[in-house]
Amino acid sequence: VGPDDVRLVGFAERASVERAQAWVDDWPSRPGAVEVGVGDAAGRLPAAPLLAAQSLPPADRACRDGYAVRSEETAGASAYDPLLLRLAEAARTAGPGHADLVAAGVAMPPGADAVLSFDAALAVGQTLEVIAATAGEAGVERAGQQLVAGAPLLGLGQAIRPHQAGLLAAAGVERLLVLDRPRVRVLLAGAKPIAGLAVGDAHGPMLRALIERDGGLAEVRQAGPDLRRALRSAALEPGAELLIATGRTGTGPDDEAPLALAELGRLELHGLALRPGGSAGLGAVGDRPVLLLPGDPLACLVAYELLAGRLVRRLGGRAPELPHPRREAELARKLVSAVGLLEVCQVRLVEGRAVPLGVTESGGLSAAARADGFVLVPASLEGFAAGALVTIHLY
Amino acid sequence: VGPDDVRLVGFAERASVERAQAWVDDWPSRPGAVEVGVGDAAGRLPAAPLLAAQSLPPADRACRDGYAVRSEETAGASAYDPLLLRLAEAARTAGPGHADLVAAGVAMPPGADAVLSFDAALAVGQTLEVIAATAGEAGVERAGQQLVAGAPLLGLGQAIRPHQAGLLAAAGVERLLVLDRPRVRVLLAGAKPIAGLAVGDAHGPMLRALIERDGGLAEVRQAGPDLRRALRSAALEPGAELLIATGRTGTGPDDEAPLALAELGRLELHGLALRPGGSAGLGAVGDRPVLLLPGDPLACLVAYELLAGRLVRRLGGRAPELPHPRREAELARKLVSAVGLLEVCQVRLVEGRAVPLGVTESGGLSAAARADGFVLVPASLEGFAAGALVTIHLY
Repeated sequence: VGPDDVRLVGFAERASVERAQAWVDDWPSRPGAVEVGVGDAAGRLPAAPLLAAQSLPPADRACRDGYAVRSEETAGASAYDPLLLRLAEAARTAGPGHADLVAAGVAMPPGADAVLSFDAALAVGQTLEVIAATAGEAGVERAGQQLVAGAPLLGLGQAIRPHQAGLLAAAGVERLLVLDRPRVRVLLAGAKPIAGLAVGDAHGPMLRALIERDGGLAEVRQAGPDLRRALRSAALEPGAELLIATGRTGTGPDDEAPLALAELGRLELHGLALRPGGSAGLGAVGDRPVLLLPGDPLACLVAYELLAGRLVRRLGGRAPELPHPRREAELARKLVSAVGLLEVCQVRLVEGRAVPLGVTESGGLSAAARADGFVLVPASLEGFAAGALVTIHLY
Repeated sequence: VGPDDVRLVGFAERASVERAQAWVDDWPSRPGAVEVGVGDAAGRLPAAPLLAAQSLPPADRACRDGYAVRSEETAGASAYDPLLLRLAEAARTAGPGHADLVAAGVAMPPGADAVLSFDAALAVGQTLEVIAATAGEAGVERAGQQLVAGAPLLGLGQAIRPHQAGLLAAAGVERLLVLDRPRVRVLLAGAKPIAGLAVGDAHGPMLRALIERDGGLAEVRQAGPDLRRALRSAALEPGAELLIATGRTGTGPDDEAPLALAELGRLELHGLALRPGGSAGLGAVGDRPVLLLPGDPLACLVAYELLAGRLVRRLGGRAPELPHPRREAELARKLVSAVGLLEVCQVRLVEGRAVPLGVTESGGLSAAARADGFVLVPASLEGFAAGALVTIHLY
């Protein structure tokens, strides 16, 4: 038991969440690249800039169904004085005195510079009666109007959206390099049975889904009876860029995870000015970062969201910030919080106002399951008054 | 060519988007149920109410590390007048005159009703010096405080969140019934080559990702040269709850999809007061709904979002509304729109203000790929003035 053993003593000091996040943000992120087909690109991050190989459209094309004409020939045409044009045959040109039936999307016939809609012209046999004039370029999409050859197809740093995958495909991209997903190993130090009743393991299903939400691939394993040995294997075996261990991080007699990490590698922070989630820790074994998340499921959720998820997102090249949509709302009642701790409060939206669900530590995962989102109360504040405008991170 | 053939004529009338959405909303939705493990439950919708089989916690438990005591014995304890208690041995009780070291999460020892934190007591050998009084229930989570046996674990109608899956697991749920995903067959009527250059097929990758976003399973196939035959097979073969056909829906000579649907089953609406996306149609073959989406990729995207996606979501038991997060913003400049058409305008957020990207039809998928979201301009409006507050559906 070394000088940093907090067991049976409590945390003498706690690191700020900002300091822990700065540690996460300083961790080098060098995701690899992997090639995927464009049909699997949605949701992934491009690994390199993608430039359009050809213009889109590659040539002038009709952007409505109708008759391709030479606009200057239609000047003065009206229902009283229709212009008579000859409909082009298979040749698909609109030479002088001719019009050509076109469908939206096809290349403009040589010579034509406008597409008349069907209410501006009436076909009678091989003759087209034009009853309205058209300006040049009406009904036409110019070559390169959507995209010029060489222009960037996508920005970096953002997951590819479904319609962006569509644009890539339209631009002729069949395969592309995307960032590899970070592999995250999760080591469950085990839920404590209580009063003879097993409390199910909440961490595995929860963390797996959170890691996937953040773009990672989760491998979940049980620590079994020997935590030190399990932590050693999990930290040293290849196949993961990040190790998350849950449970046994606190100040109780069996809370050996921080000590085990200190023996095996480096325990850099343990004990955060955070509630719930304050017994979280972080460090590394060799060049593999290790995050210790509390065993209490709600504390585990909060520490994952603020720290571990941030590292998962960074290791996959994503923005580190919380991924939840945000919304401002008035607090329906006072929210009390301890100065010196960042508190995370579950809230429910009722008639557009945020109702805090109990105090921050009670209610557990059950409160979070009923909540619409959470509010961060900065360590500098004693809370918020009723009616204050707060930012809700929506689940 | 029957009386409803709009080819070479144009749409005589257009149905409102509200009417088309009402058709979608009237379509019967009876998703089946399938059993999954709790580790695969996140993102799925519960098929039946889930009630807690046992209370959570099942018994009173410590919610912090410390010493379990009988609170009434601590009255008056202080650093000047410490109370001396005997530390319990393996028996794990806190009988009169005793305290018991406990870790957060374990059941309270019989007799104890509070947990002293480590700064309120000092262990010296088998003696505990208590230097502060505690109230009853301090540091204790009561049986059922999170959840009472029989209480609902989850609401219906909402995808299970990662931490809700965690709660299910904590409550002892190992397997549960969730709604089956709707199987969506996508029939690509084929992108038109232009000026000898193939324009890649945007629809397949885009629709696959959109359908998955909306909780469906996509099966994408090419129509090949014979659209009627392909539509017949796609509509009649088992294995799908919904058929989406893309392309050949307009007023050009080869726009045969609506006619083919009318011959095979029912074409209920064709031509919407929508831009882009106005050539969309809908109907059914037997009891299978069929949506016809335009071939232009941006029009296809818009018609998917407003109609097809709505049906995918409904068929999977999800809320029919657009799933995008919303945000209000001021328009950076005037947005002009045609009265009588619901227009969908791509916008980019620049310094918190919404900048429309060109007019609604130009720019195509490329504009949508650069956009942060889109704005719906109702058919009743001519657009919005610069500075107007608009709702952006964020990609």
